[in-house]
Amino acid sequence: MSDNKIPYKIYLNENEMPKAWYNVRADMKTKPAPLLNPGTHQPMKAEELSPVFCDELIAQELDNDTAYIPIPEDILNFYKMYRPSPLVRAYCLEEKLGTPAKIYYKFEGNNTSGSHKLNSAIAQAYYAKKQGLKGVTTETGAGQWGTALSMACSYFGLDCKVYMVKVSYEQKPFRREVMRTYGASVTPSPSMETAIGRKILEAHPGTTGSLGCAISEAVEVATSTPGYRYVLGSVLNQVLLHQSVIGLETKAALDKYGIKPDVIIGCAGGGSNLGGLISPFMGEKLRGEADYQIIAVEPASCPSFTRGKFAYDFCDTGMVCPLAKMYTLGSNFIPAPNHAGGLRYHGMSSILSQLYHDGYMEAISVPQTEVFAAAEEFARVEGILPAPESAHAIKAAIDMAKKCKETGEEKTIVFGLTGTGYFDMVAYEKYHDGKMDDYIPTDAELEASFKTLPQVD
Amino acid sequence: MSDNKIPYKIYLNENEMPKAWYNVRADMKTKPAPLLNPGTHQPMKAEELSPVFCDELIAQELDNDTAYIPIPEDILNFYKMYRPSPLVRAYCLEEKLGTPAKIYYKFEGNNTSGSHKLNSAIAQAYYAKKQGLKGVTTETGAGQWGTALSMACSYFGLDCKVYMVKVSYEQKPFRREVMRTYGASVTPSPSMETAIGRKILEAHPGTTGSLGCAISEAVEVATSTPGYRYVLGSVLNQVLLHQSVIGLETKAALDKYGIKPDVIIGCAGGGSNLGGLISPFMGEKLRGEADYQIIAVEPASCPSFTRGKFAYDFCDTGMVCPLAKMYTLGSNFIPAPNHAGGLRYHGMSSILSQLYHDGYMEAISVPQTEVFAAAEEFARVEGILPAPESAHAIKAAIDMAKKCKETGEEKTIVFGLTGTGYFDMVAYEKYHDGKMDDYIPTDAELEASFKTLPQVD
Repeated sequence: MSDNKIPYKIYLNENEMPKAWYNVRADMKTKPAPLLNPGTHQPMKAEELSPVFCDELIAQELDNDTAYIPIPEDILNFYKMYRPSPLVRAYCLEEKLGTPAKIYYKFEGNNTSGSHKLNSAIAQAYYAKKQGLKGVTTETGAGQWGTALSMACSYFGLDCKVYMVKVSYEQKPFRREVMRTYGASVTPSPSMETAIGRKILEAHPGTTGSLGCAISEAVEVATSTPGYRYVLGSVLNQVLLHQSVIGLETKAALDKYGIKPDVIIGCAGGGSNLGGLISPFMGEKLRGEADYQIIAVEPASCPSFTRGKFAYDFCDTGMVCPLAKMYTLGSNFIPAPNHAGGLRYHGMSSILSQLYHDGYMEAISVPQTEVFAAAEEFARVEGILPAPESAHAIKAAIDMAKKCKETGEEKTIVFGLTGTGYFDMVAYEKYHDGKMDDYIPTDAELEASFKTLPQVD
Repeated sequence: MSDNKIPYKIYLNENEMPKAWYNVRADMKTKPAPLLNPGTHQPMKAEELSPVFCDELIAQELDNDTAYIPIPEDILNFYKMYRPSPLVRAYCLEEKLGTPAKIYYKFEGNNTSGSHKLNSAIAQAYYAKKQGLKGVTTETGAGQWGTALSMACSYFGLDCKVYMVKVSYEQKPFRREVMRTYGASVTPSPSMETAIGRKILEAHPGTTGSLGCAISEAVEVATSTPGYRYVLGSVLNQVLLHQSVIGLETKAALDKYGIKPDVIIGCAGGGSNLGGLISPFMGEKLRGEADYQIIAVEPASCPSFTRGKFAYDFCDTGMVCPLAKMYTLGSNFIPAPNHAGGLRYHGMSSILSQLYHDGYMEAISVPQTEVFAAAEEFARVEGILPAPESAHAIKAAIDMAKKCKETGEEKTIVFGLTGTGYFDMVAYEKYHDGKMDDYIPTDAELEASFKTLPQVD
């Protein structure tokens, strides 16, 4: 199909939206390693997980075999309020760069939560409601997940308690008000409300918090409050399953116009966006039906893929959660507080970790000043003000398109634009004022952090 | 067509987008009164306007006869980056209200500027660029127009100087950073940078500013800086012309599904959104082809339609701009600083003023606490966090839908959801904390304000 027939934005019709999530684990020869009980180091059974998670989500978490899991109708209807999201042809960016590459991005910021996180939030809230729970607890970093969960809980009439990483709570004061608008309560973490929070504050007074701390607090409250469970916005298998809607829509939109991508790029924190975006493409690759270059982009200040260890580790700082086998920087790792670009989690999805370990995908890391420069360049030509997280993928896509200009290659690049940056203006201000720096952890710091890894045979 | 065939969101295809703006003046029997020279009280000629405005925009401003004005291709291409905007069927809101009414809203917040303002900003920047200008100046209230213009100027490589009403500058600190991201300079108004700003500050030290002041400052800078012109985001005929793209898309989307609205509702500050949304419907009404109930909704704290005078008045506090015949509260009128709901302009589009005067539309005013309650109710079921401005229309639409529940009428209601409230969280916080009040100007205050109206025969 000739290029000029491809619109700026490809929207699927509602009846072209996916009716089932795709579970990439079904096509993996080496399955992701199971979660382990932190005490016994034996694989966690469903009944051990049920004080923490909702029952149906546990079933999804442990299901390595079912390729397609139908999306319940209530979730499909909610999806219709903001999905399908557009697949955008970045004509203006291509022209600005003078590249022969063809650039597409799947834009997930067109909903009030401002990111893709809503895709899994609504699913998790649905299953919590179905189980008859009163409410859920969670952590949030940049605030996107907390906002998404607040919206989802408000829709189903569930109570929502959010523990927000303190540095984000302070940098993003208005996020709290958005969550309050949707009826959630928001507590900066670490807090004095939980035993683990008090312990962390005692050991590290003045800490700016981490996702790992906030997870520990949310889990403690969920397991000690009747009628509550804990929900998580990334890392877990179930989250990647729900986020597969991103990749399924992307693939359907590309197929509609007969476009085959060469490269798929996504930013990687815990892996929820990247895992969702690449899933159907990875499925084809695993089944030997097609080949794609798949690239994870992470911040140089929190480089779990590129400098982490592939090992069992705690998912949280408090070491109360199950152990997951993943690329990790150690559960005590906390990125420098001047890191403004999100993607602060110490570990990485077990699914993506296994796929990376098995050579099905690549990873690169980028320093944050260059990420914000790419964000601004993108905003000025494509209109959309990206979230710093998303801008990691933009940076990598622009670099690749520039390389295509040098080599003359007409690569088709697809990247995930996970969200908008409206609540990240403190970080943009730092960038504008030249106050951003590019701290990168030293080898010695990482070695010290690796010492907290549990010994698992 | 049966209801269940109507999707949640109606998107037009790119080839169904309007190729020309519609100029409602062509179908008005009584044309809007001309702009007058503030000194001579004679109709302004094009050459008198050219130190202030771009030449092609002046031609559009003065053209009462051409019904359709083609949209230049560069603007059409920019529109394709964020348009067509969705027409959303508010299924969830209808269900929540239990109303037999069918509610649709045209959502203009799906772009980084966060509102419909971009539709005119890109047109005005285009004509400025075409004329070979270096840059433009403008005012902004809530910041939506300033952001939109920054984006548009960045796209065409124009310099952009924004005077931002001081109260908004303080309430919305992050708006400034968004504008800076797009390369604009932003000054709180009144400022010491201009003669008129210094004069206003001397007369009213501690003033929180008004759109009228900011306009005066921007006009002064434009007329005293070579290569610059002034551009305005509302009120003017040219702006309503560009904003007709909202109504044209809305009508095309409704026609596609055979839907005929009974009621069309829009919030009204200077009239840009309302005028754009209603234009093709008003055209049919003026030509006697169809009838619609058309309702303008304004804040009780700034009630130009419902309590203003239909008279010639200054467009700005500094009294340097041409006189316009409009519903006005007097050019010195400044809403109470605790008014957080936007729509702060003292006057109203001459086109809409004439149509209202001639009985083609109605107007109501609503107090701000009820507006924020409606905003929150809407956000919780429809997902989108509305701008306070847009929430005026939501409030009126919800009230009408509730009335339909009482009477059993199955009215089809269309309203304009002009933008998102991500930068209005200070106002939402006030509402959450119960610190919002509903100040309404007294008759005596308005009478005092009317005394500044110029005497025009």
